[in-house]
Parts: sequence; C-alpha cells; structure tokens
Amino acid sequence: MLRFEEELNELQSHLLEMAGLVESAIRGSIRALSDHDAIAARKIMAGDARINDLEIENDDMATRLLVLNQPVARDLRFITAALKINNDLERMGDLATDIAERAVSLANGPLFDTALDILQLAQLVEDMVSKSLQAFLQKDEDLANTVLTSKELVEDLKNTTYQRLVSAIEATRANAVQDVDLIFIVHNLERIAGHAANIAADVLFFVKGIDVRHRAHVHVS
Amino acid sequence: MLRFEEELNELQSHLLEMAGLVESAIRGSIRALSDHDAIAARKIMAGDARINDLEIENDDMATRLLVLNQPVARDLRFITAALKINNDLERMGDLATDIAERAVSLANGPLFDTALDILQLAQLVEDMVSKSLQAFLQKDEDLANTVLTSKELVEDLKNTTYQRLVSAIEATRANAVQDVDLIFIVHNLERIAGHAANIAADVLFFVKGIDVRHRAHVHVS
Repeated sequence: MLRFEEELNELQSHLLEMAGLVESAIRGSIRALSDHDAIAARKIMAGDARINDLEIENDDMATRLLVLNQPVARDLRFITAALKINNDLERMGDLATDIAERAVSLANGPLFDTALDILQLAQLVEDMVSKSLQAFLQKDEDLANTVLTSKELVEDLKNTTYQRLVSAIEATRANAVQDVDLIFIVHNLERIAGHAANIAADVLFFVKGIDVRHRAHVHVS
Repeated sequence: MLRFEEELNELQSHLLEMAGLVESAIRGSIRALSDHDAIAARKIMAGDARINDLEIENDDMATRLLVLNQPVARDLRFITAALKINNDLERMGDLATDIAERAVSLANGPLFDTALDILQLAQLVEDMVSKSLQAFLQKDEDLANTVLTSKELVEDLKNTTYQRLVSAIEATRANAVQDVDLIFIVHNLERIAGHAANIAADVLFFVKGIDVRHRAHVHVS
C-alpha cells in the first residue's frame, strides 16, 4: 500500500507544479498587459505547451490510480478531485494565454490605459487561484470557503469594469452593447466548435486507441 | 460481466440524452437570437439545469464503473472518453445559455440585424456538434476526422465575422479593437476566478465528503 501512497503524493506534486506554472502565467500576462511588453507576453504564450503536457500526464496518472487501486472513501475523493482540478488548471492556462495574446496585439497598437480597475480585478483573481490551491494542499475547508465567497466580489468588479469599457464605446457609438453581445455570441460559437472537436478527438482515442490529444485536442479558452 | 455491459450502455444512453438537450439548446438559442424572441431564449436558460444535473450523474456513473470494474483496453478508453465528452457537453450547454442570455438582452433592445454570417457560422457549429456525437455513437473514425477538419472552417468564418463586427464599431470609434481586447481580458479574468471557485468546491468535496457541486460549482461559460 506504500506504493499507492507514494503515487498519490506524486500526483499532488505534479498538480502543484502545474499550479505554479498557471499562477505565473496569469501574473505574467497581466504584467505584460500593463507594461505594454509584447516580448514578455509571447513568453507566456510559449509556456502554455508545458501546462498542456502536464494536464495529459496527470490525467493518465489519476486514471491509472483509479483503475489499478480501486480506492474508496477519501482516496477516491482525492483522485476524482485531482482529475477535476487538473482540468480547471489547464483551462486557466488557456485563459492566461488568451490574455497574453491580446497583450501582444495591444502592445503593438497605439498607447492605451490599463485602468486601475482591471489591475484590481486581476489581483483579486490571482489571490483566488493561489488560495484555492493552498486549500487543496492543506485540506483547508475555511480557505476553500473564502475562495467561494470572493467569487461574488470578482463578479461585481467585473461587471463594473465591463460596463465602463462598453460605455466608452457608447460615447461615440449608440447601442455598442449590441455590438459587444454579438461579438461574444460569435466567440461562443467558436468555442462550442472547439468542444465538438474535443469530442471528435476523444472518439478517435476510444476507437483507435491513438492519443490525438497532443495534435488535435483543442484548448478551448 | 453482463451487468458491466449493461452499465456501459446506460452511460452511453445518458450521454446521448444530454447531447440531444445540448443540441436543442444551441439551435434554440440561435433561433431566439434571430427571431428576437426573449421568451424562447429564457426557456433555453431554464433548461440548462437539467444538463448540469446529467453531467454530475454521468460523472459519478463513469467513475464508479472505473473503480468497481477495473476495465482495460477498449472499455477503459470508452469510459475515459465518456468522462471527457460529458465535460465538453456540459460546457457547450453553458455556452448556449450564455448565447440565450445575450439573445434576451438583444431582444429587449432596439432592432438589430442578425447578419447571415452569424447564422452560417451557427449552422456549421451545429453540424459539428451533431456529427461529433454521431461519430461517438457509431464509433466512426471518418466522421470524427470530418469534425476536426471543419474546425478550421469555423475559425475562418469566425474571424471574418468578428472582424466585421469590430469594424462596425471602428467606423465611429478609432481603436475599437483595443476596447474589445480589454473587454475579453476582463471576461477571461472572471472565468479564471470561476475555475478557482471550481477548485475550491472540489476541495470541499475531497475534505468533507460533501458534494457542493450543485450549489457551489461554477459553470464557467
């Protein structure tokens, strides 16, 4: 049974390595944005490949642990939580990459102001990410609840900031809200297509036994 | 072993039920958008709860099948694929809900034009979703590859449509691209926070054994 314990520890270490990379990516993409630093932003984009690789490794490791050890109770809950956390971390990495891509295009354009509310929002979000992982590591229920509470704060600040940005457009263009809604609808449609492509890649894995995740899996940000 | 086979079939039926609901939600949200029909859009939003419940049921069922039956080879691949497809379907449901929410706010505003390119994009995406599930059901490798190929077509059409919408804003406001980039950055930060909240909910599940997914899990669209 010692071997099993060791593997659980290894899975936890992998998740923490991944979490460290994701936290750096979020922090770095926001710094690149506020510094108008396209070079730093490109480095963040390049680093996402390692996060994606780790997700696949962790996923395989957790599945193997489930199948080979038939864990129950707490161990089973640990592994299923690890599978989900792994997935959430990978998606956070994608979102940080998307921020970095936009930071590149913004840095290459005319000067703009990264207003204080965006930086405050980013700081709140970084805290949530860091605390959620700390809660996992320390099995800290109170800290986990703190993260859930912060979510509302983030939503409020996001809505205010979003509204400020849309109002700026509306100053010169009536009904800018409509434009932005339609832009998001188009964005969502593309993301749905990305999920359909994920399913197709999973079908190939299931039918052929070949893992096309590296080349075909779509990181839907 | 018959019981195991039966459970695999049941898991597949559940996924297909969920896929049917998700496909209706995507189709319905786009129809509500083009018909300026807020009532229809609200119905789509209400239907998402059932999709979210099915995700949790399927997730539990697949995990139980993994742990209790120690499947190998094809059965193992089927169950791990089912877990991932389940997750992708739930996220598609969230995205359709987000489209429906925007359709409500658009229907309540001044008249606007759902241009042909958005409807074409939606049609392409719906086809991908339907084909990806058909590929899973029929274990059809060629169909899965067709879906992966369509993804590029969707990206092209999305980029053109996105560009058209941003250019419309730019007609009256210079550097609208910047505004839109910043809006997406704010949106992404909120989604990262949503993933952190997911992790916190998983920690509570792991530490306390209580399932807070129904009330706390964040459906990050």
